[in-house]
Amino acid sequence: MRVESIHRKGQNHPVAATKHLTAEQMAKNQKEISVSEFFAKNRHLLGFDNKQKALLTTIKEAVDNSLDACEEAGIAPDLLIEIHQVEEDRFRVVIEDNGPGIVKEQIQNIFGKLLYGSKFHSRRQSRGQQGIGISAALLYAQMTTGKGAKIISKTTRGKPQSLTLQMDSAKNKPMITKEAVLKEWHLKHGTRFEVELEATYKRGLRSVDDYIKQTAVSNPHATLHYLTPDDEEPRIYERAVKVVPDRPAEIKPHPYGVELGELIRMLRETNSRWLVGFLQEEFCRVGRKKALEIIKEAGLGEKSYPTRIAREEADALYRSIQKTKISAPPTTCLSPIGEKRITEGLMKETDADFYAVATRPPSVYRGNPFQIEVGIAWAKPGGDQLEVDKRGRIKKTKKRRGTVDTENLLGNADEPVRLLRFANRVPLLSQQSGCGFTKAVTQTSWKSYGLQQPKGSMPLGSAVILVHMASVWVPFTSEAKEAIAPYDEILKEVKRALQDAGRKLGAHIRKDKRVANEFEKRSYIEKYLPHVGIGLQEILGITDEAREEIVETLGDSLETARNI
Amino acid sequence: MRVESIHRKGQNHPVAATKHLTAEQMAKNQKEISVSEFFAKNRHLLGFDNKQKALLTTIKEAVDNSLDACEEAGIAPDLLIEIHQVEEDRFRVVIEDNGPGIVKEQIQNIFGKLLYGSKFHSRRQSRGQQGIGISAALLYAQMTTGKGAKIISKTTRGKPQSLTLQMDSAKNKPMITKEAVLKEWHLKHGTRFEVELEATYKRGLRSVDDYIKQTAVSNPHATLHYLTPDDEEPRIYERAVKVVPDRPAEIKPHPYGVELGELIRMLRETNSRWLVGFLQEEFCRVGRKKALEIIKEAGLGEKSYPTRIAREEADALYRSIQKTKISAPPTTCLSPIGEKRITEGLMKETDADFYAVATRPPSVYRGNPFQIEVGIAWAKPGGDQLEVDKRGRIKKTKKRRGTVDTENLLGNADEPVRLLRFANRVPLLSQQSGCGFTKAVTQTSWKSYGLQQPKGSMPLGSAVILVHMASVWVPFTSEAKEAIAPYDEILKEVKRALQDAGRKLGAHIRKDKRVANEFEKRSYIEKYLPHVGIGLQEILGITDEAREEIVETLGDSLETARNI
Repeated sequence: MRVESIHRKGQNHPVAATKHLTAEQMAKNQKEISVSEFFAKNRHLLGFDNKQKALLTTIKEAVDNSLDACEEAGIAPDLLIEIHQVEEDRFRVVIEDNGPGIVKEQIQNIFGKLLYGSKFHSRRQSRGQQGIGISAALLYAQMTTGKGAKIISKTTRGKPQSLTLQMDSAKNKPMITKEAVLKEWHLKHGTRFEVELEATYKRGLRSVDDYIKQTAVSNPHATLHYLTPDDEEPRIYERAVKVVPDRPAEIKPHPYGVELGELIRMLRETNSRWLVGFLQEEFCRVGRKKALEIIKEAGLGEKSYPTRIAREEADALYRSIQKTKISAPPTTCLSPIGEKRITEGLMKETDADFYAVATRPPSVYRGNPFQIEVGIAWAKPGGDQLEVDKRGRIKKTKKRRGTVDTENLLGNADEPVRLLRFANRVPLLSQQSGCGFTKAVTQTSWKSYGLQQPKGSMPLGSAVILVHMASVWVPFTSEAKEAIAPYDEILKEVKRALQDAGRKLGAHIRKDKRVANEFEKRSYIEKYLPHVGIGLQEILGITDEAREEIVETLGDSLETARNI
Repeated sequence: MRVESIHRKGQNHPVAATKHLTAEQMAKNQKEISVSEFFAKNRHLLGFDNKQKALLTTIKEAVDNSLDACEEAGIAPDLLIEIHQVEEDRFRVVIEDNGPGIVKEQIQNIFGKLLYGSKFHSRRQSRGQQGIGISAALLYAQMTTGKGAKIISKTTRGKPQSLTLQMDSAKNKPMITKEAVLKEWHLKHGTRFEVELEATYKRGLRSVDDYIKQTAVSNPHATLHYLTPDDEEPRIYERAVKVVPDRPAEIKPHPYGVELGELIRMLRETNSRWLVGFLQEEFCRVGRKKALEIIKEAGLGEKSYPTRIAREEADALYRSIQKTKISAPPTTCLSPIGEKRITEGLMKETDADFYAVATRPPSVYRGNPFQIEVGIAWAKPGGDQLEVDKRGRIKKTKKRRGTVDTENLLGNADEPVRLLRFANRVPLLSQQSGCGFTKAVTQTSWKSYGLQQPKGSMPLGSAVILVHMASVWVPFTSEAKEAIAPYDEILKEVKRALQDAGRKLGAHIRKDKRVANEFEKRSYIEKYLPHVGIGLQEILGITDEAREEIVETLGDSLETARNI
């Protein structure tokens, strides 16, 4: 046994002795940490790890907010997204929407204060949920350029307000540096967000371009005008649907999703006089009968005062809830993309030979309703495209491209399948390896569906897998909202959806192989049919026409004899 | 091209129309989100994703705090860690230290308020840095059992205080539910944290057992008494070193690590009268000469008032700093484990044949000094153990175990190498796949160091790789502090350290193979030496003794002829 070590002079213990502290001295250093100081120091938690991601995150947060606002107001979203290069690594970004606008008093808090918003406390599907994103973009811009953000907003009734904002990060408070009422503005209602930040603009995978394209797929009711620093004219993604999705309903918490500590808090704060009323009023899916059942099982009285229930009694109530059969929460709070839209989106983005979609029934994790949708687009590896017509004939229809088009998401057959991840219609571009969706895909056995798959890895194939989770609360692995935490219930549902779609794919691939097989055999026989014709002609002494007719008839019987 | 879809009745668009909102209605829903509400809903961000991790995180946060407190006070840490099972999935956890204790006024904030502490604002290496962990443990316990935490603490001068605490999560404020001054306590100074939580206790990888064992390795100056729910008596990890590491020094920010926004804030808030003084007093590594150089390059005056500097001037100052050559920050703020301790730790935990350690010189990312240490333990795959003695003889010394001992970290030769990750002496057990250290290992080419490595994966081998990052600020990928964000500078340093140690490993493995080769050849010749002896005896007619002597001499020449 040997020990080798690499020493560098003076590197081994570079600690200088400093004075030790007493408890009293330590106490003086204890203080509150503002949430904005915390995130300024931990900016990678918010998706600002590097200049390229900073640009993407800023645009993503602004677009998410714009789409949410339009939908809440029932307006078909019309968005303008502009990136202007100011210096080598400085960009000015503009996001403008035709949403309902923001009332003047709220503008500064929404854009200039972390942990502020309307979506955190509501149990309804939305893109934003934390009240962090857009103020984080302002904070990052301010940290890197020293400049604040400019917001113009107009409500239907109000005048167009223009505010320039900075954030006091030690206090997590907005500071207005300029303020004006505009005489006129080109929109009747809407909001414009403009900010200058240190950034890098790149094309390709995980770029802003990629994000915008995927956003158009998952939001077919929105029109996006997107101007890159490289283009003269904006690219326009026109809406494919005129109808705005209905505003998802807000729901009360489901009893199964409320923990003991939360239950105690709810009991303390309720306005309900009696326990039986409390259960019916504060939760979904609990009627009078169910409430009485829960109370009886817990050994409590229906007319107990909720506010006077002790911890031990609350514990009994909690356990009783877990034992009682309560139906799943309503799913009116969810807004899935829909199978038709997913297929259309995949068709627009891929030149595949086969598409399969699967929608799971809504399910629940920690009391939060959610629903999983999966789409698969698959292209036959290389070679000719074979199809079977109505009469059962096999036809070569087209040649597939050998190389990958940059605009085509499909990779080569020996590459890992591309995974498109969406949460509440928002494309997730980063942190794929740490995402629960990825885990579900790699843990699914794709060999039985006709795809090769190295152990513990993504399946291989010229294919795209799309996974969408619609939920009232998406459990992201970080505040940057880039990947889904692998809760068991979510993993299970994603796997099932993948299996549903995978089985269809497997059936198609098997059939496809059979067709290819048949085709090979047929073409082999076909090759000799003319020779058989000539032979028959010689033996029977028939005309050329009769020979051709025989050859054709033989060909037809060959086709119809082989059922596929 | 075909489209297959799986429909379920009524599942396809389960959205019920709800009333759309105006800007004014939306404004009413806008409100502040308390940081504790935020983390209660996002508990997976803090490492409380499931019951097993909840137990680990609770213990980890308490132990980290205890070790930090002891070291700050210059006390050799003596810790008691107890896990008691209360019900099937409820455990009572106790962590007691002999640290300096906490003054009474601070106890409630330290344990009952998120984002509160002494380490966030100091630029010095410590385990804790966020002021979130231990209060998060209390919050989780309260959410799952409805009970608060009990803290007993005594300072040298003060009396033993006992507090039972809960947290008002809507306000992120501590609530004292019980309070007492104890007449006596068994420690002169120290702190005891006791909490009941919903949890699962498991052994094996990523368990509390694993964490405690690794903590003992990276903290050889600490004694840990660890009682599991399965044992009658605590397991004792005695300290291997009597000396407490020196308290790392606190440093001022380095000019390169300060961004424009931060510089503007510092200018606004400084007490320095003149710019030249500001630069010298607020930053490390800036003397008068350097300060004047920066100011001149920026086109400013040395006697400008810092508080009156405009954004454009600050911008010039910022750019001038980037252009000026300033030496790297001091590294007295760091406390690496040290090569000797790393080797000893690896030896204690693995039954390997070879150990290599590498320490990088300190480096800087975003102005934060950090230092990387790497250790490798490697065992020859299966078979016999060959060694070369001083005379150059090859000896078989022992048989290696064929199977993996549960207490031995080394896996089989065809399995991925095990990676032990540490940040500021704290073992990181979760999120390995999302960690920058893992990225650095998989991006290193191990084939040239004699290990097999599937493309883009961990190398294979019966080996352990240990990586430690010591830094004044560790960029974790989430508040749970489980993985390191892959900043370029950090990745680069880890890779270089891996290469340094890897080269040593490569040299050893090559030599090892050569030895094995020699051994094979030698044993082949050796086999025939007696026959040569018998032949010579027959030809020369010598005695049996002379024959044996000749055989021995031949054997010796064989050994010495082959230099290894």
